[in-house]
Amino acid sequence: MRAQTSVSQPSVKHHCGLFGIHGDPQAAWLTFLALHAQQHRGQEAAGICSTDGQQIKRYAAPGLVTEVFSERTLANLENPTAIGHVRYSTTGASHKTNNQPFLIQNNQFGAVAIAHNGNLINADLLRKKFEEAGAVFTTTSDTEVIVHLLAQPSDDNLERRLIWMLDHLQGAYCLLLLFPETLVAIRDPYGIRPLCIGRTKDGAYTVASETCALDRVGAEYLRDVEPGEMVFIDRDGLRSRKFVTESAVTPAHCIFEQVYFADPASNVFGENVHLVRKRMGAELAREAPIEADAVVPIPTCAVCPALGYARESGIPFERGYTTSHYVGRSFIMPDQVNRDLAVKMKLNVIEDNVRGRRLVVVEDSVVRGTTTRGKIGALREAGASEIHLRVASAPIRHPCYYGIDFPDPAKLIANDRSVDEIRDYLGVDSLHYLSLEGMLRAVKHDDGHYCTACFSGKYPVPVTHQFDKYSLDRRQLVMFD
Amino acid sequence: MRAQTSVSQPSVKHHCGLFGIHGDPQAAWLTFLALHAQQHRGQEAAGICSTDGQQIKRYAAPGLVTEVFSERTLANLENPTAIGHVRYSTTGASHKTNNQPFLIQNNQFGAVAIAHNGNLINADLLRKKFEEAGAVFTTTSDTEVIVHLLAQPSDDNLERRLIWMLDHLQGAYCLLLLFPETLVAIRDPYGIRPLCIGRTKDGAYTVASETCALDRVGAEYLRDVEPGEMVFIDRDGLRSRKFVTESAVTPAHCIFEQVYFADPASNVFGENVHLVRKRMGAELAREAPIEADAVVPIPTCAVCPALGYARESGIPFERGYTTSHYVGRSFIMPDQVNRDLAVKMKLNVIEDNVRGRRLVVVEDSVVRGTTTRGKIGALREAGASEIHLRVASAPIRHPCYYGIDFPDPAKLIANDRSVDEIRDYLGVDSLHYLSLEGMLRAVKHDDGHYCTACFSGKYPVPVTHQFDKYSLDRRQLVMFD
Amino acid sequence: MRAQTSVSQPSVKHHCGLFGIHGDPQAAWLTFLALHAQQHRGQEAAGICSTDGQQIKRYAAPGLVTEVFSERTLANLENPTAIGHVRYSTTGASHKTNNQPFLIQNNQFGAVAIAHNGNLINADLLRKKFEEAGAVFTTTSDTEVIVHLLAQPSDDNLERRLIWMLDHLQGAYCLLLLFPETLVAIRDPYGIRPLCIGRTKDGAYTVASETCALDRVGAEYLRDVEPGEMVFIDRDGLRSRKFVTESAVTPAHCIFEQVYFADPASNVFGENVHLVRKRMGAELAREAPIEADAVVPIPTCAVCPALGYARESGIPFERGYTTSHYVGRSFIMPDQVNRDLAVKMKLNVIEDNVRGRRLVVVEDSVVRGTTTRGKIGALREAGASEIHLRVASAPIRHPCYYGIDFPDPAKLIANDRSVDEIRDYLGVDSLHYLSLEGMLRAVKHDDGHYCTACFSGKYPVPVTHQFDKYSLDRRQLVMFD
Amino acid sequence: MRAQTSVSQPSVKHHCGLFGIHGDPQAAWLTFLALHAQQHRGQEAAGICSTDGQQIKRYAAPGLVTEVFSERTLANLENPTAIGHVRYSTTGASHKTNNQPFLIQNNQFGAVAIAHNGNLINADLLRKKFEEAGAVFTTTSDTEVIVHLLAQPSDDNLERRLIWMLDHLQGAYCLLLLFPETLVAIRDPYGIRPLCIGRTKDGAYTVASETCALDRVGAEYLRDVEPGEMVFIDRDGLRSRKFVTESAVTPAHCIFEQVYFADPASNVFGENVHLVRKRMGAELAREAPIEADAVVPIPTCAVCPALGYARESGIPFERGYTTSHYVGRSFIMPDQVNRDLAVKMKLNVIEDNVRGRRLVVVEDSVVRGTTTRGKIGALREAGASEIHLRVASAPIRHPCYYGIDFPDPAKLIANDRSVDEIRDYLGVDSLHYLSLEGMLRAVKHDDGHYCTACFSGKYPVPVTHQFDKYSLDRRQLVMFD
Repeated sequence: MRAQTSVSQPSVKHHCGLFGIHGDPQAAWLTFLALHAQQHRGQEAAGICSTDGQQIKRYAAPGLVTEVFSERTLANLENPTAIGHVRYSTTGASHKTNNQPFLIQNNQFGAVAIAHNGNLINADLLRKKFEEAGAVFTTTSDTEVIVHLLAQPSDDNLERRLIWMLDHLQGAYCLLLLFPETLVAIRDPYGIRPLCIGRTKDGAYTVASETCALDRVGAEYLRDVEPGEMVFIDRDGLRSRKFVTESAVTPAHCIFEQVYFADPASNVFGENVHLVRKRMGAELAREAPIEADAVVPIPTCAVCPALGYARESGIPFERGYTTSHYVGRSFIMPDQVNRDLAVKMKLNVIEDNVRGRRLVVVEDSVVRGTTTRGKIGALREAGASEIHLRVASAPIRHPCYYGIDFPDPAKLIANDRSVDEIRDYLGVDSLHYLSLEGMLRAVKHDDGHYCTACFSGKYPVPVTHQFDKYSLDRRQLVMFD
Repeated sequence: MRAQTSVSQPSVKHHCGLFGIHGDPQAAWLTFLALHAQQHRGQEAAGICSTDGQQIKRYAAPGLVTEVFSERTLANLENPTAIGHVRYSTTGASHKTNNQPFLIQNNQFGAVAIAHNGNLINADLLRKKFEEAGAVFTTTSDTEVIVHLLAQPSDDNLERRLIWMLDHLQGAYCLLLLFPETLVAIRDPYGIRPLCIGRTKDGAYTVASETCALDRVGAEYLRDVEPGEMVFIDRDGLRSRKFVTESAVTPAHCIFEQVYFADPASNVFGENVHLVRKRMGAELAREAPIEADAVVPIPTCAVCPALGYARESGIPFERGYTTSHYVGRSFIMPDQVNRDLAVKMKLNVIEDNVRGRRLVVVEDSVVRGTTTRGKIGALREAGASEIHLRVASAPIRHPCYYGIDFPDPAKLIANDRSVDEIRDYLGVDSLHYLSLEGMLRAVKHDDGHYCTACFSGKYPVPVTHQFDKYSLDRRQLVMFD
Repeated sequence: MRAQTSVSQPSVKHHCGLFGIHGDPQAAWLTFLALHAQQHRGQEAAGICSTDGQQIKRYAAPGLVTEVFSERTLANLENPTAIGHVRYSTTGASHKTNNQPFLIQNNQFGAVAIAHNGNLINADLLRKKFEEAGAVFTTTSDTEVIVHLLAQPSDDNLERRLIWMLDHLQGAYCLLLLFPETLVAIRDPYGIRPLCIGRTKDGAYTVASETCALDRVGAEYLRDVEPGEMVFIDRDGLRSRKFVTESAVTPAHCIFEQVYFADPASNVFGENVHLVRKRMGAELAREAPIEADAVVPIPTCAVCPALGYARESGIPFERGYTTSHYVGRSFIMPDQVNRDLAVKMKLNVIEDNVRGRRLVVVEDSVVRGTTTRGKIGALREAGASEIHLRVASAPIRHPCYYGIDFPDPAKLIANDRSVDEIRDYLGVDSLHYLSLEGMLRAVKHDDGHYCTACFSGKYPVPVTHQFDKYSLDRRQLVMFD
Repeated sequence: MRAQTSVSQPSVKHHCGLFGIHGDPQAAWLTFLALHAQQHRGQEAAGICSTDGQQIKRYAAPGLVTEVFSERTLANLENPTAIGHVRYSTTGASHKTNNQPFLIQNNQFGAVAIAHNGNLINADLLRKKFEEAGAVFTTTSDTEVIVHLLAQPSDDNLERRLIWMLDHLQGAYCLLLLFPETLVAIRDPYGIRPLCIGRTKDGAYTVASETCALDRVGAEYLRDVEPGEMVFIDRDGLRSRKFVTESAVTPAHCIFEQVYFADPASNVFGENVHLVRKRMGAELAREAPIEADAVVPIPTCAVCPALGYARESGIPFERGYTTSHYVGRSFIMPDQVNRDLAVKMKLNVIEDNVRGRRLVVVEDSVVRGTTTRGKIGALREAGASEIHLRVASAPIRHPCYYGIDFPDPAKLIANDRSVDEIRDYLGVDSLHYLSLEGMLRAVKHDDGHYCTACFSGKYPVPVTHQFDKYSLDRRQLVMFD
C-alpha cells in the first residue's frame, strides 16, 4: 500500500556497536565520539550509561548519535566510567523501551547497565521458561533474557554468577556490563562479532566493537577480547578469565563484517577491512576478467573492492555517481511518487563520465537486488554502452541467526534464481559473484575461522530447537510512543 | 538554590484516577473524556490501554490528558474495551517508565494491562523478596510489585490467581486489570480509595474512581465496588466475588477525599462531596462564629465550605480573588524573581471588594501554610481591615501511608506549632480549625467508617514493619529522558 | 465536516492585552507576570520586546504566556525596559508572522517595537493606498498599517511624527511603542479600550490594559491614559501630550469590557469590574424577580452578577457545576464523538445540589447560545425542577468594529429571534435579558460615556466607507508553519 | 570561549540552490526531490511555494530538505506549479524570517513568490533609499530589496515592471519569480551563478541551478538561461526576453563553482564538473610531479582532482580515510573536549593503508587551513612516511562579493603567508597550489568568461560605492525564535 522507501535506510540492517571506557574524566564525551565513529553499526537509537563508582546514570533515545545527545545530556552523564550502544535491533521492534544499554538494580548485586551486540538463538526458549516461573518481561528484546539470567540468585561471587549466566546463552554475543566499580567485556566462544581492547594515552582502558572507535578517541589497539573470554576492568587494571574450556572455543568470525558491516578503516578479526575488501576485488578480477573502459563502484560501500579490481585488471578506477550525504531524518516517499525517482533519491549520475563507455560496475554484495538494479538502471539511462556487474561476495541464500537482519529468504534475489536469471533481472551484460573460495582467499584465516553461513548454509552454532527468530516480536502488545 | 515555585503545581499532590469501560465502540474516546473529568486526581501523566478481545494496545505519556492524547492517538486506540489512568505517583519518581497502565505479556495468562490507585505499605518488602528470587524490576513504582505477584505461577484459574495475588497486598489499592476478554475491578478490604460502577445508556459497564467520570460519559451510577470485592466484567455481564471474609472488611474511607481530593460534583463513599464540604463549613460556623462583613473562600477548593459557613452564619458570601485558569505547562520561576510575586502568580485580588472590610476567609485545609499565607497576605495588602481564617478540617499532623503525598511531617505547619503560633505565622486576626468531631458530623458515617489518620494518627491498616515510603525512589539509578 | 469543538476556546474571542515597564532591572520578568495576569485578554500568542537603551530584542510565539516563555528566553530578554502583548487578533489570521510586538528598524528613526490592542476601521483603505505607492506588507494584521504610517518620512521630530501617524488612524487603538530610549503609550480619542498607568515601589512607570496587571507586579495605580493622550516615558520621567483637541475627545468606553472581557479584579474606565457586574446582577433581580430555591451562575464568568442577583433577591447563591481548569493545549474533538459529550467537556454538574430544585441560572451574556444551551441542558438532565435564565446584559444584535470578534450577525442567537423564541431554544422556563438602561444604571457614567454598539447599534466612530472587517484575511497567500 | 566546532558544517558556506517547475501535477514532490539533489548548495533552510493558478501556498523552515518537508506538508503544497529554494544566506543572518522563497501580495500585481541565488552589491544602498522614502523592511536579507523594487508602481506591464526592477540590481543574481499564472527565471548579465532549463518527459519545463536537479526529476537538459535573459514560462510555453543589450552581457562565471560548489554530476557553464576537476588534478600533476606510493584525496570533495592526478602521474589512487555520513543535526562540541578530537570527528583513517607510505594528498582548495591541517595530521599520526599536498586551485586571497561566504580575508590562510609558510603550518613535506593558468586550462572558456576574483582580485562587476557586505546584518534588532 505504501511505498515506504526510506531515503536514509540501508537495505541490510546493521546490528549494533559497543563502546566502553574506564577511568577517564571525559568518559561520556569519549563514548559519544566513539559511538559516532561506529554509527554505521546502528542508526535507530543510541544510549550511554556512566558511573561515578556508586550511582549509574542513563540516557538513551531513538535517533543518530548526534541527534540523541546534546552538550547538556552529555554534561549530565559526566562520570569517569561509561558504556555506550548504538542499535539496530535484530530481534525486538523499534520501541523506545528496547533502547540500550539496559539499566536495572537488584538487591543482590546492586545496579548494572548492560549493552549487547549479537543475537541469541535460545532467547525465545529461555524467555518461556522464565515466564513460566513468574518472571515479568517489559521489552521484546532478547537482551532482556540476559538481564533475567543475571538476576537469578546463582552465586554471590560476581565471576561465578556471570559464568552461570553465560552457560545459558547460545548464539552470538558481545556484552558490556557496567557495575559501579567494574566494567566487564564478554565475547561468545565463537567470536562471531568483533570486540577489541585499547588504551588511551592517559592509560584508560577502552573496549569497542571496531578499532575505528579506538582511533577516534586516541586509544591504541591492544588486542581483541578473545572468543570465550571475560575481561574485568576496574581501578586495579585489566583481568582476564576464560569462561569455556579451550576446546570449546571454535572461532567463527562473521565474514559479512568484512564484506559489508565494518568500517574500512577498522581492523576486525585481526586484519584491515579495507585491505580485505581490496583483495576480494582483486580475486574478483582474476575470477572474472573483462575488457572495459572504467571500473565504477556502486556507492558507497563498493569503493574498496572496486579499487582492488581496478588495480588487478589495469582498468582505470572512475566515479559513476555522486551521493547525497545530507540524509537528515528518515523520510517516507508517498505512494504517488514514481518508484524510479525514489530509488535515485540519493545519487546523481555523472553522465558525461558514463556515456558511451564500457563499465565494470563493482558491488560489495547483493541482497534483494532492487537497489542495485535501480542504480545500474541509472547508468544505463545515462548512456553506458556495456555494464558488467562484479559482486565482491558470493550469492546470499541463507538466513543469519547471529545478528544480521537479512530479509526473509524468499526475498533474497539469489534464493531461487540462477546467476543468469539475476543478470537478466538486473539488466547487465554480464554478472559474476566472487566464489566462496575467493572470499576465503582474501582473508587470512581461510582455515574455517570464519562463519560463512549466509553464503554456504553451514552454521557453526547448532540450532537445537525449532527456532523462530521473530517470535519475540510477535506478541499481543502494541505500545506506541 | 532554585526557587522552584511551579506555577501550576498543587501543594498536596493528588494521587491517581481510574476509569474502565467494557463494550462500547468508542471506548477509548469515552475513557479520554472520563480521565479528563478526573484530571484533578493526577496531572503528571495519563495513559489508556484498549483491547479488541485479543491484542492490547497502550499509549501513555507525561502531561495533562488533553496534552497526552490527540485525535490520532485515540484513533489508534479504537477498541471496544479500555482502561485509563491519570497519575501523580506517590511512590515512584516521575520517569516515563512509571506511567500507567502497565502493560505486560506472559505465557501463562497472556497479556494484561494494570492500573492502580493507592499505595501499598509492603511494596518494599515484597520487592526485596522478589529480587532475592531473581526478579527484575524496571520501574520504581509500587505497582510493579503487583505485576510480579500476578505473574507468579500460582494457579491456572484466573480468579484464584487474583486472590493469591491480593492475599499478598497490604495497604490501599483500587485496581483495574484489563485482560483481552475480561475487565476486572478490585478494591482493598478497607475501601480506602473510592471506586464505583456505572452503566451507559447503551448498556456498557464502566468503572471509575469518582462519579463525575460516570456523568461525563453519560453513565448512570449503579453502586460502589465494595471493600474486598472483585468485579469481573465480560460479554456475559458483571460478576462479583468477595476475596476476603465479611469479618475482614473494615471500611476506612479516606476523609481527605471529602476534604480536598474529590471533585465537588462527585459522590464518593455514598455522599455528595459538595454537600459534605458545605456541612463542614456550617459546622465551622457553629464552632467558631465571628462578626464580619463577608465570607471569602481561598480559591478554588474552599468555595464549598465557604458557602456552608456563609449560609450558617448569615454573613454574605463574596469573592476576594479571581484566579487564572491559563496555567499551561509547569513554569519554573527564576531565583531572582521576588518570592512574593511568585506566590501571587495565579490570583488577582479584587481590591475594591476587600478594602476596609472584615473578612472571614475560609480554607479547606492547611498543609505547609506557605501558599495560604501568601494568599492571605494579598488580602491584607489590599486593605482588609480584619481577617479571620476558618479552616474546614483539622490540623494535619501525621503522614499518610495510603496514597496521599503529604510533605515530610517536619514541613507540615501544624506539626509542632500551636494554633496561636500558626495564627501569627499566617498573619490573621483569628484562626480556627474544624474539630475532628465536627468533620465526622459532616459525613454520614461517623461511626468509624472513615480513615482520619492524617488528622488523628490512628491508622486502620497495621504497619507491621519498619516502613519507608520513599525507599523505592532512593535507588542507584538515574534515568533521564 | 469536522466538529471542531475545541476544549479550551472561549466562544467570544478576547482581543489583546498590553503591558509596558520602564526602568526596572527585572523588566522582562515583570512583563511576563503582567501578561500572565492578563492572559484572559488573548490566548493565541504572546510576545515581549525589551531594550537596553540601544538594541531591542524580541521573542514571540504562539501559545499561552507560560508556554511561550521559559526561564532561558526571559533571561535572554533581560533589559531594563520592556513591552509585552498577548493576542487574539481580530483581523489577521493566526500566522506566526502576526505575533506582536512587531519589531522593525528604519534608518529615519532607528528601531521600534509596536504593540496594539484594538481594531482600525480604515486599515483596509490605508493598506490599499500604501500598496499602490509600492509598499510591501508581510502580515495580514491591521497593526502593520500603523507600522507603515510610522515609517513615512513625515517629520524628524518624534512627537510630530506620531501625531501625523495618529491623524490617519480611525477606530479603536491602545498602542505601546518601544524606542530604545523612550516608551510611548497612546489611547484613541474615544478611549474604547482601557489603558492605565502605574508605578512600582521602586519608581518604575508601568502601562497596562487592566489594573490587575499592575497589582500582579506590585505597582500602584496612578491614572488612566486619557482618550486622545500620548504618554512618553523615559529616564526623565513621564510626559503627557494630547494629540486631539479637547472637543474631539468623546469617551465611548466598551461596555462589553465590563460585561465579559475584563478581569473582575480589575478597575477599568474608573470602576471595579466585579462591583459593576454585581450591580448588573442586582438590576437584573429588580427587573425580573422570580421565586426559586437557588441562584446558580453559569461558570465561570457569571459568578459576579449571580452574587448580585442572589443578594438583591435573597435567594441563596449556590454552585451548580464544577469546572475543569486543566485545559492544556487546544484539543479538537473528533466527528464521531457525540456532540452532547463535547459540550459538557469542561464541566461536572453537582447533581445532588440540583435535583428537584427551582433554579435561577445567571449568565453574563449570550452570543450564539449553543454553549449556554448545553450547560442548561446538563442541569435539566440532573433533575432541576425549574430553570429561570437571567442574562446580565442585553441581547447582542450588532457587529463590533472596535476589536471584539463576535461571530457573523447571522449566527448571533438574538439576531432574528424574539426573547420567547430564545427561551424555547434554550429550554428554560423563563428568560430575561437585562435592559440597556439597567446595564447603564450599573455603571457610573450612564451619560453616554460608554459604547453600547453591539447591543444598541449606535456606533460612536462613524464608519465612512464600505467596511469589510475580514478583508485583510481574504488574501491569495497561504502560509503554514 | 566556546569551541563551536560544529560536526556538520562545511568550512565555506554554500550559497543557495533554486528549482522551479511549471505544469506537472506532482510539482511540489518534484521540487522536493530537486532541492534534495541540490542540498549541497545550502543546508540552513528550505522552502517551497506552489500555485494552482490563483492562490500561492508556502512552506519553509530551517533544516535539511528531508527534515523540513514531510509527506503531509508536501501534500498541502500539491499544485501544478512550484518553485523551491535551499539556502545558506550570504547576507542575512539565520532568522526564520529570512527563509525563502519570500511570498508577498500587492494590490498592483497580486501575489508573487521570489527565490534568489546570489548577492547584490548595492542592496545596502537601495535599502537606505527605500527606508528614507518610508518603506518597512522585516528581514535582513538582500532579497527583500528585490521585493521592494518589484512593488514600486513602475509599470502595469509585467515585463516592463521586471526590467525596471532589474535595472536597479547590481551584483550576482539568479531569480525565480512565481506568479499565479507565470513562472519567471532571470539571470544577471554576468551569468555569475548557474541556471539551466530542462523539460520532463511529460513536457513540463523546469529551471534549476544545476543539471543534477534536472536528472533527479527525469528532465532533459535544454540550455542555460543566458546572462541577461528573462524566461517566462506559462501555459503557452516558454518565452525569452533579453533585458540588457548584447554588449552589456559580459560572462563572468564563478570558477569556484567548478572548484568546489557544484556537484560533480552536474554540468555548469556548459561543461561537466567532474571532468573539469579531473583536468585540474591532471594539470596539478603536470605542474608538480612527485614520487610517491599513493594518491589520496581529502574527503570528500577532492576525489575528482585526485583521480585526475593519479591518472596523469601513474601513481595509484587510494583511500586514506573513511568518512561518516551520519551527520544528523549540527552538534556543538563542548569546550572541554580536546580540539584534536573535534577535528577528527567525521573521519576514520585507514591506518594499515597509510602506514609507512609516501602519499600525495590532494585537496580541492584551502580556505582557513585548520580542517586540512587536522586531516593531514591524522595521516601523519597513522604513520605516513611522506606527505605531499597538492591543491587543485590557486591560493584564495580576496573576498567574494557575489555570493560566496568566505571568512574575513584576515582568516584566509593564504592572505599573508607564503607557500612555504603554509607548508610548514600544515605540516607537509611539500605543497603546491595549482596555478591560475592551470585552472583556466582545465575549463573550456579560458578567454575571460570566468570570474576568478577570489584568486586574482579582478572583479568583473565594478564596486561603485564603499561596500560593506555585512551591513544588513548589523542592525539594532535581535529576534530569536
